[in-house]
Amino acid sequence: MQPSVIFVIGVSGVGKSTIGKLLSEELKISFFDGDDFHPESNVQKMSNGIALVDEDRYSWLQNLNELAKTQVKNLKSCVIVCSALKQSYRDILENTIEKNSKWIFLKGSFELIKERLDNRKGHFMGSKLLESQFNILEEPKNALHIDVKSTQKDIVKSIKENLENKSEFGLFGLGVMGKSLSRNLANNGFKMSLFNRHVDNLEVDVAKNFKNQFTELSEAQPFDDLGAFVNSLQKPRKIMLMVNAGKTTDYVINDLIPYLSKGDILIDGGNSNYKKTLERFTYLKSKNIQFIGTGVSGGEEGALKGPSIMPGGDKDSYNKIKDYLEAIAAKDKNGKACCTFIGTEGSGHFVKMVHNGIEYVEMQLLAEAYILLKNSGKNPDEIADVLETWKITTNSYLLEITIDILRKKENNDWLIHKIMDKAGNKGTGNWTTIATAELGIPSSMITTALFARYSSFFKDERIAASKSFNTIKFDVSSFNADDIHKAYQFARIVNHYQGFKLINEASKKHSWSLNLSELARIWTNGCIIRSDLMENLVEEFKTTDNLLSSKKLIEELNVLKPSIKKVVAESIIKEQPIPALTDAISFLNSFSKADSTANIIQAQRDYFGAHTYQRNDDVSGKFYHTNWQE
Amino acid sequence: MQPSVIFVIGVSGVGKSTIGKLLSEELKISFFDGDDFHPESNVQKMSNGIALVDEDRYSWLQNLNELAKTQVKNLKSCVIVCSALKQSYRDILENTIEKNSKWIFLKGSFELIKERLDNRKGHFMGSKLLESQFNILEEPKNALHIDVKSTQKDIVKSIKENLENKSEFGLFGLGVMGKSLSRNLANNGFKMSLFNRHVDNLEVDVAKNFKNQFTELSEAQPFDDLGAFVNSLQKPRKIMLMVNAGKTTDYVINDLIPYLSKGDILIDGGNSNYKKTLERFTYLKSKNIQFIGTGVSGGEEGALKGPSIMPGGDKDSYNKIKDYLEAIAAKDKNGKACCTFIGTEGSGHFVKMVHNGIEYVEMQLLAEAYILLKNSGKNPDEIADVLETWKITTNSYLLEITIDILRKKENNDWLIHKIMDKAGNKGTGNWTTIATAELGIPSSMITTALFARYSSFFKDERIAASKSFNTIKFDVSSFNADDIHKAYQFARIVNHYQGFKLINEASKKHSWSLNLSELARIWTNGCIIRSDLMENLVEEFKTTDNLLSSKKLIEELNVLKPSIKKVVAESIIKEQPIPALTDAISFLNSFSKADSTANIIQAQRDYFGAHTYQRNDDVSGKFYHTNWQE
Repeated sequence: MQPSVIFVIGVSGVGKSTIGKLLSEELKISFFDGDDFHPESNVQKMSNGIALVDEDRYSWLQNLNELAKTQVKNLKSCVIVCSALKQSYRDILENTIEKNSKWIFLKGSFELIKERLDNRKGHFMGSKLLESQFNILEEPKNALHIDVKSTQKDIVKSIKENLENKSEFGLFGLGVMGKSLSRNLANNGFKMSLFNRHVDNLEVDVAKNFKNQFTELSEAQPFDDLGAFVNSLQKPRKIMLMVNAGKTTDYVINDLIPYLSKGDILIDGGNSNYKKTLERFTYLKSKNIQFIGTGVSGGEEGALKGPSIMPGGDKDSYNKIKDYLEAIAAKDKNGKACCTFIGTEGSGHFVKMVHNGIEYVEMQLLAEAYILLKNSGKNPDEIADVLETWKITTNSYLLEITIDILRKKENNDWLIHKIMDKAGNKGTGNWTTIATAELGIPSSMITTALFARYSSFFKDERIAASKSFNTIKFDVSSFNADDIHKAYQFARIVNHYQGFKLINEASKKHSWSLNLSELARIWTNGCIIRSDLMENLVEEFKTTDNLLSSKKLIEELNVLKPSIKKVVAESIIKEQPIPALTDAISFLNSFSKADSTANIIQAQRDYFGAHTYQRNDDVSGKFYHTNWQE
Repeated sequence: MQPSVIFVIGVSGVGKSTIGKLLSEELKISFFDGDDFHPESNVQKMSNGIALVDEDRYSWLQNLNELAKTQVKNLKSCVIVCSALKQSYRDILENTIEKNSKWIFLKGSFELIKERLDNRKGHFMGSKLLESQFNILEEPKNALHIDVKSTQKDIVKSIKENLENKSEFGLFGLGVMGKSLSRNLANNGFKMSLFNRHVDNLEVDVAKNFKNQFTELSEAQPFDDLGAFVNSLQKPRKIMLMVNAGKTTDYVINDLIPYLSKGDILIDGGNSNYKKTLERFTYLKSKNIQFIGTGVSGGEEGALKGPSIMPGGDKDSYNKIKDYLEAIAAKDKNGKACCTFIGTEGSGHFVKMVHNGIEYVEMQLLAEAYILLKNSGKNPDEIADVLETWKITTNSYLLEITIDILRKKENNDWLIHKIMDKAGNKGTGNWTTIATAELGIPSSMITTALFARYSSFFKDERIAASKSFNTIKFDVSSFNADDIHKAYQFARIVNHYQGFKLINEASKKHSWSLNLSELARIWTNGCIIRSDLMENLVEEFKTTDNLLSSKKLIEELNVLKPSIKKVVAESIIKEQPIPALTDAISFLNSFSKADSTANIIQAQRDYFGAHTYQRNDDVSGKFYHTNWQE
């Protein structure tokens, strides 16, 4: 647990010292009376009945802030009592220790306090100044408000309960990812409230059972009642939604709204469509609720041990949840969190979407490397042996797990041979393809990888077609494992070029001002597409937004190109489909050709649709129409 | 002009016979008094003051309907007077000649008519039955209502003007397509109202000037006032919108609604997104307006001389506009209109969208054939000479225009050399790609053609890249013009397979029950993708929905395959991008492979995301999860 500085505040005579002292005894922590830290000049003034002015208070409040910081630094909690009537005073008191400060505001009517002051002896402040205190009082918003009418015992009990029971962070939805993130947050010392809905016979006591399963959750509060869950959170509430992306997210948001207060923050950690995130941001803004749409990559294990996190929304809102997200994120090679503020609303989920698109391609390329190596007569273990050697120069998380997969055996056979070759998808590859189409960016490899999954799904049609078409058996190749490795690496660079190009064009269109190097950095660990290549891109993007203008990558592509040409050309002749590798070289051949064949297209469009065309010999960009039949 | 049967109707005593006779004289057409066609039994009843019942009227109304039909058959217009107080009577009267019937409803107050009847001598109906006539009267909605208070002369004049001036069909929006369709409709004898908005200094008297430009429009009425335009149309009004697809369509619809009546029909002939068409259909239904979204293909010339038309919506609404659309459509080789009811709402624009997607690919394939022939050292005229020979077996509209384009010269050089190689697009290729992604169909060639246009647009980046990458000059090929022709034809078949597959899957999903053979038939003429291949597909789709199961096409693809493999493999080695040809063989190689590499993808997804997988050795389809790291 982090040390707390509990400020007990309120007007003179409200009982701060008494309650503060009792509370410190109850909690077994140090007690400091703010008045003891006044400079002599202030004490003099007050005993003469002269009201302090702000200049008088300034050095005093700084003294108290120094005291509080020293306590935090020494990992000691404490109680400090101090009137702190204005927000500006409180800002000084908790400066740099906002995360550790708790505020208890003791509250009573003017009449009650006046009576108490009149009855009090030996206090150096006369009751005549009480009125001025009520006048300047700005009631704190983020404090626990305690009515002093109760008995001292009850007051202390209530404060203690509240201090102990309010959680810092709420997690809504305990599926695979929600559970892992909850444990990660708890492991980082955050006090959590956990919610999972109740569904008769299906989802019963999910949060409670989950809490009881893991020791790190001993402090967590489990709920299946929405109101109780929200009320268990400190304000402004911070609730992360880990529910199925889509309509469920909207239902959950609408269920939550009645319980939320102005300034509360909802964080959508699901794979939501970025357009929906934009809509939800605007909708929640109209309700005074702050909204952060964040990508979370790393799968179940990443979520538990440190995912890569991509939050987008208002920077102010982000700053309020930053400590939580950065604490649980993976760390890059320099120890910095793999979490950064991405940009304004929608950008977090957009980059996560493209992340997944890049992931689709990386997976497909490994599948193609596998089939090419298999065609050369290798068994899965032998293929894994080859892939092991690739780790030396081109390691990646997906390469590592593919090696594990290939080595997995079941009853003396490789498990990979038993797996049905129909690939599922959860929508992000589809969305990325739609984004490329809408934005006018030819990120063809993502689409190719998506279509490879789609084609795989028409298994019956493929079986029928395999009987209809003359096909040939793949025989010994003129290319070797090293050529396959080079083709693979060539295609990976093109894939990363296309993915980041899509992000960069979207950033321009939506004015997100995304930082590609920083994005590559948070993808160097925690996420599925972490790799040696990604580490290189952190550096490359410091000097360019266009990887095809990077001298280093141009050199590398030129070295690798002969291999991918050989591999793809021969595979076409031998009818071995390797669509992503094929598309990689096809794309670079197109994109490195100064002249395209689009002049024919433009002439055709002008011929049948009078769509007009521009000319090479007119730099003004003027549009021409020709009557082609004359 | 079509013959008209003008029914003059109203209660006894309103003056039907007088007005009807005068009108027939004015119009120089025959006059028939309905009463003359009563069976004797009815005459008897009426003169005895006994009201007729519906059974009495039935054979009489049928007599009149027979009379009217005979007139129409003989191409003679006429006036028939008859009380026809109920809609059900009028339905019998105009049965099968709805298109030719015009209704004039003479209207007067009970008091006025009673007075007239009381003053009338020799009429066989007593005035005491008038009250029962007013009781059963159902005022007609689609009739011209004429108040009989005016003089007989004025009444006849008003009827005549109205009869002459009401147009049958309205065309809204006189852009390139709107103008051509208007002239086509006028050339087919339809009386048109033409509307184009007024925009100061920009669009002034557009409709008026257009009408004055073409003799076929001498009968047409031009407008820039919306109310006058709508009021100039016979009810139910039929208004075709030819405006820029997108928000404009919604604005126009909302502008029109206040002027429309129940049952009026709006036809959107723009390239609207089919999802929007679905929304608009539902919206207009709530306003009692019928909506047909229709694809129109053929460009400016097709619209004028006969386009291919693809209407979707309610079959009932279609039947009301069928005569207009089928008259102006192109005709297939058997003389049948290249227009057919496609299916329920949205389907018309969906198939037009895919039509355009197929078109994108056909254009791209010709561009690729061009560059391959150019690489072999041929100039545009020589390339055109080669393409001429392709017409013998694989002719198409796009092939024909490409030949024209290649032969076009300007100052002793070929114009094609002057055209900027940046291809535009208007959205339908983009939408088709989005539809493939959303529906899970790997219609990869459409996407490839779209991305080729997108790539063409990044000309500056391509020029920069062309300097960075080692490129080689395309030298003499091992393939010849015949191989290119075969590769081209192979890719076209795959393209048509993919396009129709997309349509067929969408049809299943939306329950459109589309008829692929009929669709191919209306694409054999008038539209941009008409071709010999399309003629073949009309037959193929009579026996299968899946072209890859057609024996004929399988044989053809097997014959062509060696050529496309050779062309694509060599082009990859020689770095000549031919993305659509490449994709065609890559796709068929994938789709004719019984086993895909998706088992690797599924294992990876299960490894990092616990997404589970199915097994080859468990036909139950059960999902498994493995702990891969153990």
